[in-house]
Amino acid sequence: MEILVVGSVALDTVTTPFGDAREVLGGSATYFASSASFFAPVSVVAVVGEDFPMEALEFLRRREVDLTGLERRPGRTFRWRGEYGFALNEAKTLETQLNVFAEFHPRLPEPYREREVVFLANIDPDLQREVLTQVLSPRLVAADTMNFWIQGKPEALRQTLKQVQILIINDAEARMLAEEPNLVRAAKTILGWGPRSLIIKRGEYGALSFSDGGWFAAPALPLENVYDPTGAGDAFAGGFLGFLASTRNFDEANLRRAVIMGSVMASFAVEAFSLQRLQHLTYPEIESRYRQFKQLAHFEDL
Amino acid sequence: MEILVVGSVALDTVTTPFGDAREVLGGSATYFASSASFFAPVSVVAVVGEDFPMEALEFLRRREVDLTGLERRPGRTFRWRGEYGFALNEAKTLETQLNVFAEFHPRLPEPYREREVVFLANIDPDLQREVLTQVLSPRLVAADTMNFWIQGKPEALRQTLKQVQILIINDAEARMLAEEPNLVRAAKTILGWGPRSLIIKRGEYGALSFSDGGWFAAPALPLENVYDPTGAGDAFAGGFLGFLASTRNFDEANLRRAVIMGSVMASFAVEAFSLQRLQHLTYPEIESRYRQFKQLAHFEDL
Repeated sequence: MEILVVGSVALDTVTTPFGDAREVLGGSATYFASSASFFAPVSVVAVVGEDFPMEALEFLRRREVDLTGLERRPGRTFRWRGEYGFALNEAKTLETQLNVFAEFHPRLPEPYREREVVFLANIDPDLQREVLTQVLSPRLVAADTMNFWIQGKPEALRQTLKQVQILIINDAEARMLAEEPNLVRAAKTILGWGPRSLIIKRGEYGALSFSDGGWFAAPALPLENVYDPTGAGDAFAGGFLGFLASTRNFDEANLRRAVIMGSVMASFAVEAFSLQRLQHLTYPEIESRYRQFKQLAHFEDL
Repeated sequence: MEILVVGSVALDTVTTPFGDAREVLGGSATYFASSASFFAPVSVVAVVGEDFPMEALEFLRRREVDLTGLERRPGRTFRWRGEYGFALNEAKTLETQLNVFAEFHPRLPEPYREREVVFLANIDPDLQREVLTQVLSPRLVAADTMNFWIQGKPEALRQTLKQVQILIINDAEARMLAEEPNLVRAAKTILGWGPRSLIIKRGEYGALSFSDGGWFAAPALPLENVYDPTGAGDAFAGGFLGFLASTRNFDEANLRRAVIMGSVMASFAVEAFSLQRLQHLTYPEIESRYRQFKQLAHFEDL
């Protein structure tokens, strides 16, 4: 199955305790597509400005990512500037310049309307729905969101959630969205609003999946070198949905494999600044790390 | 194998968002013994004051916990007062009254000197070593500690660690002890100081085990009702060591089962105030929850 992603293609400036990166390739759609492209064909809907260095996306084209839906508009590209402390779990946003993203209304190239798997990255929930109305018969819709939309556009977000099968957010977002500090009760509330599955990302603590088929706790791989957590959540979503799209199997056992595959891709994403690690990754490395996760989490019956 | 534990028997006053408990049974040795007694015989070394309600320990006697090493001294019992916010992971200590614990020097009843498994709960590292010198030939020594000793008695603690095979601490303590924010590197440093295994407790995020045999990530069970996290770490240690003592098998596969058993016991401990849940627990409930952990963490190969 082919995947459609709508999100940002950005230039990031990032400071971590281990170094800095200035105006490097970033954005939710970029991380997602880079990760998902190891598993399934990906089509990108996004916008960049005239200043965007298109050659930076050459590696995505080589992986047969379809960029015909990437508009180039007069003006400057979306920019994000952030920093991380030693607790790498949370970014502090220093500056967000929407630029050409401010007036963005995604318009899907005709072939994109046939896509069966859709990832609505973290953008305005009204735009997320604008994309969905253009897709003819989506089989699987997954979405991300963030505190900005949860607090700023709660009604629009609830409308979007009705059309989403899998919501992929972090634990703070889940608590805020459900207005409930207990994660289990928050999950139950959110699953009552539409999604069949809720995937909760917890950074270095792994991920949780709540769905009809049960609860699943995935570990994160303890990493000796974490350089830049930017994009880890979108790399996770890319591995997760890419794996589901490639296997065309949405049962609980495969959903769990997909959560691990998301965790595998996130573990690579954080090992270097920007998309450096995902750019130079090979599929055998991915399979090998999946086995590492299996080894990490396995224990015997009594 | 029989277990010896040295630690505190206390009266706790606890406030959580879900209620309060005043002067209830607490203490590291109490939680540990209560948990470990489901698996192996336990002997307690601790001290209480004249004001301690000895009948509160009747349930431990019924589980054949040996309390001949529990001294009763003139003065008041050790008291701890703390509170938890909605983030239940960390207690805020409001008051600690050492009372009879201030002058405590553990003296082992003669039969205790034969014990093969020893748990040194979180007390002064000099006292931890005083206990060890009285044990004739310990096969397995595990220990806990905390920021107070890591910062206040670093040299004494390093001496103790030379005699400890398994260190069981939380992630903040591991980072502080190794003076290293990265957990993998912190683990490597600590394993260089003596322990063969380092178990890192992460509360609602589960536990990690680092040892020669590999790395293991255990999930925590997502719980809908968490009332009081007090003692969860000691209940964990009790399930972990109790299981190892009862199975007399210290290989990696069994170490992993033991980490899960620790997590099982901690998950019960937090479901009620004080020792209420551990007091009324049955072994079939423990087995059933172990299977729940297995179900929670299981995923298939690719």
